[in-house]
Amino acid sequence: MLSLDRPIGVFDSGVGGLTVLKALRAQLPHQDFIYFADTARVPYGRKPREMVAEFARQITVFLLQEGVQAIVVACNTASSAALPELAEESPVPLWGVIEPGVEAARRASASRRVGVIGTRGTIASGAYQQRLEREGLTVWARACPMFVHLVEEGLAESDEAEVLARHYLADHPRIDTLILGCTHYPMLRGVIGRVLGPSVTLVGSDVVTAELVRGALHARGTLRENGHAGHVLHYVTGDPLAYRHTAAVIGGTEGEIVPLDVTRLASAAEAVS
Amino acid sequence: MLSLDRPIGVFDSGVGGLTVLKALRAQLPHQDFIYFADTARVPYGRKPREMVAEFARQITVFLLQEGVQAIVVACNTASSAALPELAEESPVPLWGVIEPGVEAARRASASRRVGVIGTRGTIASGAYQQRLEREGLTVWARACPMFVHLVEEGLAESDEAEVLARHYLADHPRIDTLILGCTHYPMLRGVIGRVLGPSVTLVGSDVVTAELVRGALHARGTLRENGHAGHVLHYVTGDPLAYRHTAAVIGGTEGEIVPLDVTRLASAAEAVS
Repeated sequence: MLSLDRPIGVFDSGVGGLTVLKALRAQLPHQDFIYFADTARVPYGRKPREMVAEFARQITVFLLQEGVQAIVVACNTASSAALPELAEESPVPLWGVIEPGVEAARRASASRRVGVIGTRGTIASGAYQQRLEREGLTVWARACPMFVHLVEEGLAESDEAEVLARHYLADHPRIDTLILGCTHYPMLRGVIGRVLGPSVTLVGSDVVTAELVRGALHARGTLRENGHAGHVLHYVTGDPLAYRHTAAVIGGTEGEIVPLDVTRLASAAEAVS
Repeated sequence: MLSLDRPIGVFDSGVGGLTVLKALRAQLPHQDFIYFADTARVPYGRKPREMVAEFARQITVFLLQEGVQAIVVACNTASSAALPELAEESPVPLWGVIEPGVEAARRASASRRVGVIGTRGTIASGAYQQRLEREGLTVWARACPMFVHLVEEGLAESDEAEVLARHYLADHPRIDTLILGCTHYPMLRGVIGRVLGPSVTLVGSDVVTAELVRGALHARGTLRENGHAGHVLHYVTGDPLAYRHTAAVIGGTEGEIVPLDVTRLASAAEAVS
């Protein structure tokens, strides 16, 4: 197995978080990463909040045992279910994808009227809406449960994507900024942009989260600005062949893939708590 | 763990095959069943044919080791990828869901013009089309890759289901029978029936496959017509909690759930071959 140097841990229920990893690698090309895909339990979107929070805790324990210097919860459902508690418990910096998205939308919106889309879990949690309203913004929120499946089916540019994007988005009120509140959605920028038109700025948590992590590493003095190209090690709870196949729809994050038994993950976390 | 009496093995990539198990239990209430859900590797629909055929072979080996008296491949993708080879190799009767659907459509169609819908894997394989055309029928075929996700998201009766069903089906040519060529689709009978209207008969592989199995067991003298109510044991390669949660959208197939490491499954099948 690869030997990694102070890797950054990134996790998601599946391949969606790879959009965040891709943005991180673009901004931190010399850094090593561990990506954890909980594909045996994907999707998180419609599972109970407590169940998702427990999954996130198990994965955090695992990543800490692997020696990560920081953790990115690259999953909106897990971020809304488990943060800020998980960040408070973690001995290393731990960020979700919600705060960076909120901050970017606040900066981008001139009209102070913004939208947010995500899974049913994320939207029902109100995690984005509460933070945005606390900033004095007027918020329109919409759950788009079929969008994740469009991306994973490789149908981000398809007739189905057009039909579903119109269904979910065509009746939006006046907004000038839309948060793509699910890590899969940056893959749908094209179709969402066509439905909403050029007057609406799209904020993807991929780019803004990577900017945040870059700044934090720089401030702590652990940012590698040169040297060898960074490596990626993928841990996968479901089938590794199937993961490699689905991960190809995101692309740009190739690395070694190591299968992991999800039942062992649960008992290891139990032993620690 | 439950002790089962000459169980019938039923398998699918995920929860879709539970529609077949539900129909089997309705027609064979005293029979014991093992249901195998390969949720660590779901969905099969867009994976290569060779990969799916290998998964089906691994699961068949496992079910035979569990002592099943017959096997139902309750998955159209696996049936089209692995049959008839798998049936020829199996020491116990093994049926897919395609032949029963073709036979039922042939009987149901007066105009000799039928349609078939399924995943991309099933439709691209031509498994239904070839068999139907061999019967002298004129065939319209359409892949509906998003339908599986509607069912698993619990959105079988939703605005999204209406929008997608119109998208996939509204432009169909003149047919009087439509095969629901995916085990998830019986859950969408309502919306599909509304889009197509009463002039089109819907053929679901759930009911017709159960009829076939009942007839075969009766002919072999192993049909239990009375005694205790049959039990169901579920083996699941992905997370058991997540499985229970998703399985609830089908319903009616409650039983003990046993997790199984998918990497062990692959190596056990290797040892046998």
